[in-house]
Amino acid sequence: MFVNRLIEEIKDKRSPIVVGLDPRLELIPSTIKNKYFKKYGKSFKAAAQSILEFNKGIIDSVYDVVPAVKPQIAFYEQYGIEGLIAYNESCRYASEKGLLIIGDIKRGDIGSTSKAYSTAHLGKTKVEGEKLGAFFSDSITVNPYLGEDCLKEFLGDIKEYSKGMFVLVKTSNPSSSQLQDLVVEGKKIYEKVAEMVENLSKKYIGEYGYSSIGAVVGATYPAETKKIRSLMPSSYFLVPGYGAQGGTADDVVHSFNEEGLGAIINSSRGILFAYKDEKWSEKDYDAAAREAAIKMRDDINTTLEKNGKRYW
Amino acid sequence: MFVNRLIEEIKDKRSPIVVGLDPRLELIPSTIKNKYFKKYGKSFKAAAQSILEFNKGIIDSVYDVVPAVKPQIAFYEQYGIEGLIAYNESCRYASEKGLLIIGDIKRGDIGSTSKAYSTAHLGKTKVEGEKLGAFFSDSITVNPYLGEDCLKEFLGDIKEYSKGMFVLVKTSNPSSSQLQDLVVEGKKIYEKVAEMVENLSKKYIGEYGYSSIGAVVGATYPAETKKIRSLMPSSYFLVPGYGAQGGTADDVVHSFNEEGLGAIINSSRGILFAYKDEKWSEKDYDAAAREAAIKMRDDINTTLEKNGKRYW
Repeated sequence: MFVNRLIEEIKDKRSPIVVGLDPRLELIPSTIKNKYFKKYGKSFKAAAQSILEFNKGIIDSVYDVVPAVKPQIAFYEQYGIEGLIAYNESCRYASEKGLLIIGDIKRGDIGSTSKAYSTAHLGKTKVEGEKLGAFFSDSITVNPYLGEDCLKEFLGDIKEYSKGMFVLVKTSNPSSSQLQDLVVEGKKIYEKVAEMVENLSKKYIGEYGYSSIGAVVGATYPAETKKIRSLMPSSYFLVPGYGAQGGTADDVVHSFNEEGLGAIINSSRGILFAYKDEKWSEKDYDAAAREAAIKMRDDINTTLEKNGKRYW
Repeated sequence: MFVNRLIEEIKDKRSPIVVGLDPRLELIPSTIKNKYFKKYGKSFKAAAQSILEFNKGIIDSVYDVVPAVKPQIAFYEQYGIEGLIAYNESCRYASEKGLLIIGDIKRGDIGSTSKAYSTAHLGKTKVEGEKLGAFFSDSITVNPYLGEDCLKEFLGDIKEYSKGMFVLVKTSNPSSSQLQDLVVEGKKIYEKVAEMVENLSKKYIGEYGYSSIGAVVGATYPAETKKIRSLMPSSYFLVPGYGAQGGTADDVVHSFNEEGLGAIINSSRGILFAYKDEKWSEKDYDAAAREAAIKMRDDINTTLEKNGKRYW
């Protein structure tokens, strides 16, 4: 099961963190980019190959420090077909290095369409009897606005292929409160979603008491996180918003249960572009990323320990 | 502006309908498929080339009958990179035939990520100073669960490139009521979303009194549609759920305003696979699709006229 593999990797590496692979071409070291611009001109191919080489450098430098990476597909889609080839190749490369892949795709649609997204990212596509893999994720993020029949379409592939999903419950952005915090019969919308997800997740609980059906819960809302944690005791939380978006280790500590499990904290910009700190130069972007990942891991582990949530 | 072009095309063709390009490989005529299986084996390339040829046949047979097509990207993503090449080529081909493209992608994320989706599907991507197009839509569908700061990220490209978007308000699927119909201070969630979208849409109103920021409102909920129509007088509605999902012309008539404008009705399976009716054979799938599109157009126009909503 996905959640078992995730927990084992977290324990083995002593690291409940995930690196968000959200590449920004303008921040990729020019030593990398110039090589591809020279070869392929100012093209999507050059951009995508730059991203892929950059990602490989990041993956090589963090694969023994973190259990997972989370590529955000939007940052690849903007480079068209070539960008999506780089997405796929980055996922494949990270997977070969033993990392779990959380595809941050936030898909969700009516039944038959959600099924197609599930096939694309978690399952296999049938072509004249052959079963082929389209995109490569161990788990994905899913949007709940269409309700349970949308979410259920992912469950078949989650079961058959030992995959997982994280459903958006409370997102990290400033206007997440606009819909998610509206109050219905004394309960906020995100609590209603939390109940819906918790309900679905019960059939997918692994040996550590957690489910492969998890929740996205932003680090930027610690009070809400406490509430959601109590509503979803068996859901693993994918927590964006640490670092660049303002979330701290003290904020994310509420995502973890008493035994120090139950959450994986994401950082994207803070690790990928750690080299922007004046002590680094761009050629050392990979070493800077490694140092930032280790610092983040230690920050979170220290805070967990301080709160009596030692998981190792 | 997108909405002006849409209305002009609807009036010119006397046709407020859109064909959903949601290809299903198992329903594509074997005369098409076998050619590509022979050439490329049981591969994504064969599947994608079959889809592209099928789509071109549909487009050739309906481009003078309908103003727009709505490819659902999930059905292409499941064939991986090759599938997305077919998505792009289908959009390009339809656009060359004068059709408007509504990319049914239902994206939506935190600010910087939504901006990347906007760049990918509506805008242009900067590569070392060059501006390049990644995917090709005139308008897209967007999910509102993350709130207004997500939606706002699409507005820049909508303005700069004369594009549009349709925000999910009330979807056509059975469990759409689960979140969308929850009541907050006497208002349902979909009414709250309707107000949010109407508010954003006001700055993008074209010469016919409608906005390029529209709403997705399912044909399967006619009572809710009436309510939403009154809350969003200037939003164009993209209406899925006619035909295969159970919506009728009498159901969708409430999506139109008194002058017969304000909505475009989608049919996917009912047109694409009309050849499954026993009077057709699969080699005539394109002629069957044309007849089904004309029948749907006439069904809707007749019902509009009966309700005093003649727009032509």
